[in-house]
Formats: sequence, structure tokens, C-alpha cells
Amino acid sequence: MLLAKRGVLMKSFYEILIKKRDGFEIDSEDIEFFVREFVKGRIPEYQVSAFLMAVYFNGLSERETFDLTKSMMMSGDVYDLSVFGKKCVDKHSTGGVGDKVSLICGPIAASLGVKVPMMCGRGLGHTGGTVDKLESIPGFGLGLSKKRFFSVLKRVGLVFSSQTEKIAPADKKLYALRDVTGTVENLSLITSSIMSKKLATGAPSIVFDVKTGKGAFLQSEKESIALARALIKTAKLFKRKAVAVITDMNEPLGCCVGNMLEVVESIEALKGNGAKDLMEVSLAVSGWMLVLSGVAKNIREGVFLAKKQIENSRALSKFRELVKAQGGDVSIFDDTKRVFKTSRFVVDIKAGKKGVISELHARKIGDFCTYIGAGRQRLDDKIDYASGVVFFKKVGDKVSNDDVIARVYFERKEMADYLDILADAVKISGRYNGKAGKKVLGVVR
Amino acid sequence: MLLAKRGVLMKSFYEILIKKRDGFEIDSEDIEFFVREFVKGRIPEYQVSAFLMAVYFNGLSERETFDLTKSMMMSGDVYDLSVFGKKCVDKHSTGGVGDKVSLICGPIAASLGVKVPMMCGRGLGHTGGTVDKLESIPGFGLGLSKKRFFSVLKRVGLVFSSQTEKIAPADKKLYALRDVTGTVENLSLITSSIMSKKLATGAPSIVFDVKTGKGAFLQSEKESIALARALIKTAKLFKRKAVAVITDMNEPLGCCVGNMLEVVESIEALKGNGAKDLMEVSLAVSGWMLVLSGVAKNIREGVFLAKKQIENSRALSKFRELVKAQGGDVSIFDDTKRVFKTSRFVVDIKAGKKGVISELHARKIGDFCTYIGAGRQRLDDKIDYASGVVFFKKVGDKVSNDDVIARVYFERKEMADYLDILADAVKISGRYNGKAGKKVLGVVR
Repeated sequence: MLLAKRGVLMKSFYEILIKKRDGFEIDSEDIEFFVREFVKGRIPEYQVSAFLMAVYFNGLSERETFDLTKSMMMSGDVYDLSVFGKKCVDKHSTGGVGDKVSLICGPIAASLGVKVPMMCGRGLGHTGGTVDKLESIPGFGLGLSKKRFFSVLKRVGLVFSSQTEKIAPADKKLYALRDVTGTVENLSLITSSIMSKKLATGAPSIVFDVKTGKGAFLQSEKESIALARALIKTAKLFKRKAVAVITDMNEPLGCCVGNMLEVVESIEALKGNGAKDLMEVSLAVSGWMLVLSGVAKNIREGVFLAKKQIENSRALSKFRELVKAQGGDVSIFDDTKRVFKTSRFVVDIKAGKKGVISELHARKIGDFCTYIGAGRQRLDDKIDYASGVVFFKKVGDKVSNDDVIARVYFERKEMADYLDILADAVKISGRYNGKAGKKVLGVVR
Repeated sequence: MLLAKRGVLMKSFYEILIKKRDGFEIDSEDIEFFVREFVKGRIPEYQVSAFLMAVYFNGLSERETFDLTKSMMMSGDVYDLSVFGKKCVDKHSTGGVGDKVSLICGPIAASLGVKVPMMCGRGLGHTGGTVDKLESIPGFGLGLSKKRFFSVLKRVGLVFSSQTEKIAPADKKLYALRDVTGTVENLSLITSSIMSKKLATGAPSIVFDVKTGKGAFLQSEKESIALARALIKTAKLFKRKAVAVITDMNEPLGCCVGNMLEVVESIEALKGNGAKDLMEVSLAVSGWMLVLSGVAKNIREGVFLAKKQIENSRALSKFRELVKAQGGDVSIFDDTKRVFKTSRFVVDIKAGKKGVISELHARKIGDFCTYIGAGRQRLDDKIDYASGVVFFKKVGDKVSNDDVIARVYFERKEMADYLDILADAVKISGRYNGKAGKKVLGVVR
């Protein structure tokens, strides 16, 4: 009764907050109320952050997670892709270093007639973003209107668009608050954040690439599996088909980290020159996309078909078609090497001793790339598209004194100060007992 | 590293927040930093409230509680009462309904030469505040300057002053945020809030009256004992002598609830006409005040001496002297009955059946009194000083159909709508097996 006079809104959200603090479930209407009023700025942030911390400690039930996801999804535009039928599949990665899988699996699936609507984000912190990678191609436009999104998807079968302000704005606002209040790392909140955006863009099937390890958002395999399960569960509650591939993210995926460098590596992968680990993950993800969209009967056939699309160059052509459709300069497809000549500074990191590479710490490498301009520390940081690192050796590879392990590209002299961080990320041992190379750790369906 | 560019302050407090969230201890300097910067408005409230919720779940260690208390104490004026030596004792109640013990034990102790500096608060919610009670005496001034506080204390041996803005401002600001974010009910935060104010006003000894039960801040005896222990421990870390009396607050203390009504009941108590339960608590608290200040050797002697000061009317004279010294109209001492004639509406609540009173729900009664103007729901609510309830029956008393259990005084007709709440607070049963009457449940030293 005490709070009644403070106004209905204060009262209601305060009660919701106390309920969650005390470990009770929040009713569906109350979650809907919370999301709606929060977006309108009618609930003070200090109450929402206290609520989020209570959620951090007490969690959300399956039903609460469903409701939060739904409310956030409904807070903005919801795309209806039913016109494309069941042969339409989305793909989402929880984020890693050197993760250019979308640029490979998207063209592969689309080249087999699957519609692939890719709504992607910018990079922040140590993980890169697909938007930044594609923007490194001169002319490539990602801020697509809903109309253009549909037209490219219809015509090419594949589209990459940056997350607009209109997709799940509640998630955007809530995430910004979570980011500064230590409430990001909660399974239910992560799940609802990912799913609200994925559901709003409407594909009937979704393949998740849940990264695990030093360079991933979740470092332990146990947590990653739990997230995969929560994503699948929520997807199914919304009547979506879904599969989650758990993949290793202890070392960067493939050889390149850096926007333009990764585009070029993707093109080379589609030409059949992809690194072993990158291809393992890309083929698994592509395979599952083909299974969920009904093109392949099972994952074996899915991987087989995916491989074939690389061998017959159809996936490469599809990527080129896509780049052209979205206004990008396709000359890069014919001369991938030129990107390595544009940076002002090039520094080689040599082994300096004999041994086996036992660690290429993905997180440290991701941070390093951010500092040398390949990523952003703040949302308004400018990116140097050709900056980054190319690895000539991967974990498990033997090296001698003079072997170049990595080549670093950057634009400003003072960035050389950060090279220590990269050096620190590389460990060479007498012997290496790890299971080098195996990247696909499991599948959650 | 990510947060480094957002500015040093953001970075540091974010790290403190994460540390507490993850269950680690916060360093002394970091707690000092937090309190200092928070008072200056340099840490966003949404981060502080998330931190408070993390404290709610993970608690504060003894050392952290000490540091928080110290930093909040040092955030404003700190009184030095050393001039009064060891014969100086403060008293603090965690708040209850009908709790006028300060108005009784203060005069008793002061009448025996003990210096009693009472820094008190206003009521908010269902519990009353000593400031409101004394302000119901026409002319009584409580907003004393530090100088006047010392002069009244020196001359009368007793002073009542409202908490100024200058005493522990950090606690004031932090409490306001806790109040709206569900982070009040944490032992360490409660302890540091109480202690920062008590320590700032500087008495070498403190007697705590920790209420427990339906009308108390803490409802379970276990929690109340834990709070008592935390208060004593913190007091000792600051080299204060301290005792905590755990007292029952399931039914209101004494017969009157309401500001002027309680002043009148206190005067009657000092005249020797106090209700049994009120006297039990008042004498215990007075006794311990005498023990801590060295006037009595032990609690038995303390209670004996306290009783004597009532019998010889010296405590009554001291109260009158105090009221006069602080500008209050002392005519109320000669005609306590007139207060029952000032309210516009008087309603009797009758038993309506035969039986034994098994419950007078203190919380409900406290809320009821707030609604009829005897307390405030918001800090800026105006109080009707003569409004309130007088109970003619207490828990354990036998009643017949026509017996008046309570008489209600109020000013506005529409307040009669709330009478249901009072009726709901009273339970009459066939028999009553509770330990009616016993109010002092234990002592923590």
C-alpha cells in the first residue's frame, strides 16, 4: 500500500523487482508491462538494473525467458518470411575471433536454393562483426530497408543487412544497460537477447554456432552447451526448427583476423583454399542449414552437398552475385592479394625458438586487433579495414626459430606498442598434447 | 581494457561492481572511492543499484561493513562528545509501532546525570519517528544547530535533535536509492546505515532496541538477533560500548499509536502510569543505558535505579525541563487528557464477540495510522498530530461483546474508509496460548 501513491508505474515495477529478488516467477503480463514501459523510458534505469542483477542471481524460468523474448521481439518490426516457405534458414554465431563462417555458409546454402536472410551486427570489443567485414568491401551497403531486404533475398536468395533500430529495440536498450551494470553474463538474458532479434527477422529455421573457449563469450564448454540448449528450447517454443553447433574458439578461426582480410579469406575458402579448421566449422554449419531447410536428409549429406558447391564454384558465384546485388566492388574476387599491400605498416612475428605452437589466445588476439584499428572499443570508433593479423601457423604446428607465425597489418606507427599483447597471445612449447584442429565439439538439437 | 576509454570513474566502479557480483571482497580504498564519488553524483545510479543488488545477494564481510560504515560516517559532520566523558550514552531503535521508549528512557538516564544525545528521525511508512512525536508538542524545536545541540545537552543532560543533512549524507543518498530498488533488507547495509549515523553523532556507548515481529523491520527473531550481533560487532570495531535488547514488536508497544497520543502516554509512563509492556522495554533499555554509562553495576541495578527515577518523579521533571529547553509548551504535562478532545472524529472499535485478543497486528495498525494521518506515506505528507489509536485491550486480554478494544482519532470523514484495515488487524479467539506480555526477548552484548 505504501507505494500506491507514488504512481502506478513505480509501484508495479517495484513489486516485480522484489518478486524476482525473492526468487519468484514474474507473470507474463508483468514481463510485457516491464518491456513496454522500459522502452518508453517510464521505468527508472536504477530499478531496471537492480532487477537485472536480481535476474543474474535468481535466473529466469523457461516461461519467463519465453515471455521476455516475445516482448522484446514484439517491441519493434517483425518480418514475415512465410512467403519463402520452409526452404529458408537463418544462422547466428555467439561471436568469436576470425569468425567469417557467415560469409561462407550463406553463399553455400543460397547456391542450393535456400533463402538465407542474414541480419548481422557490428563488432564491439574483441569479437568482430559481419557488418564491419562486409563494409570493408567498397560500396557494399548493409543498412537495408525492409523492402530492399526482401527484394535482395528474393532475387539472390541471400542478403546481409545490419540490425536496424527497428528490430527488437527493447533488446538494444536493455543490452546497453546490461553492458554497464555487469548483467550481461546470464543465460536467460543472453538467450532472450539473441532470440528476440532472430525471431523478429522471421526465418522458420535457425542454425546456431555457439562458440566456446578463450575467445568466446562463454569460456566453458558446460556454459556453452547450456546456452545452446536454452536457445534451442526457446526456438522450439516459438515453433522454429533449430540446431546448435558447439565450436571451439580458443584460437582464432582460420588464418585471418581483420575485416578485409577475413573477406578475402572467405573468398579463398569458397575457391577451395580454406584453412582446415575454418572449413570444418563452415561445412558443419552449412550442412545443418541444408538439413533444416530440407535440402539434405542428414548432416552427412548436408556436408557433402556443401563441399560440392565449393568444388563446382557455385557458392563462390553466389557470393559474388550477392556482393554485386548489395552494391559492393566485386574486383576483390579477382585480386584477393591486393589487400595485403594497402596497410602502411607490416610487421612479422617470428617464433624465436623451436617447438610446437601450444596456444594462440583468441581473446588476446581479438583485443590486440581492436587496438590496431581492426575492431572498435567504443561504438563510434573508426575501423581500419585492411588492418589485422594473418597467421601462418596454428595451434599444433611445429615451428623453428625463423618461422613467421603471424604478419600484422596496421596504419599508425604508435600501434606497434601493442605488439607485446600479440606476442603474449602466442605460446610455444616443447611438445603439444592438445587435440589440435578439432573445432566442432558437438551438436545440440 | 575495453572500459578504459570510457573514463576512469566508470571503469573503476564497474570493476568494483563485477567484483562484488562475483563474490569477492572490495578493498577499503574502493569502498571509500565508491562512497565519495557516489555522494558527488559521479557514479550513475543504475550502476550503484546493480551493485546494491549484488550486495543483497553476496553480502558484505565484516571488514567491508566496517569500511562502508566509516566512509558514510566521514561523508558529513562528525560530532566529538569526548568532553562529556564516558557518562554519555546514545539509544537507537530499529523502529516499531507505538515505540515511544526514547521519550521515557532518555529522561530517566539524564535524571541520573548521564548525558543522552538523541539524534532522531522522522517516521516513514508504518513506523513512527521520534521527531514527529516531539514536534506534536507546540513550539518544540528539533532542527538544532551543532552549537545548540551541545548547549542543550550540556545544560539539560538530554537533547533530541532531528538528523541534519550534514550527518552521514552518503547514507541518506544511498538509503533513498535502496528504498526504491529493493535493497533495503540486507544486514550489512542496514548495519552500516544505522552505525554511520550513530557514530557520526559520537556517543561512547550505544543501547540498541532491536525490534522483532510483525510490526518490525525484521520479522523473524533469527534475523533480528543477527542484526543485533552485526550492530554490536561494528560498534566494537569503532571502540564503542554497546548492548542490544531484542524486543517483541508483534503488537504495538503500550496503548497509544499516534504522535501526540504517544507523548501523552510517555508522560503518563514517567508519572508511573505506564502500560506493563511499555515499562518492561523502557526499563530494560534505561537499565542498560545506566550500565554502559557506569551508573549501575549491572542490569538489575540499572532497572532498579530507573524505576526509582520514576517513583521520585525526577525522570518526569527531566522530561519537562527538556521540553522547556527546546521551546515546547509544557502545559501538556499538567493536562494530558486534552489531547483526546482535539480530533474531529472519534470511533470506537468494539470486540463484537466474546474471547481473548490473540492478535493486534502491529504492521497493519501502523499502516492504518499512516492512512488516517498519524504517519506519512511520502516524506512530504503532512501529519495530523492528534490522530491515532488508543488500545484499551492488549494481546492476551479477555473481551466481551461490548468491550471497546480501540478508540480511533482522526480528522477527515473519508478516513473512516480505512477502519476495515484496523478491524482486520484485531483477532479474537476462543483461547490464547501465546506468551502475552513478555516483550524483552533477549540481550546481545
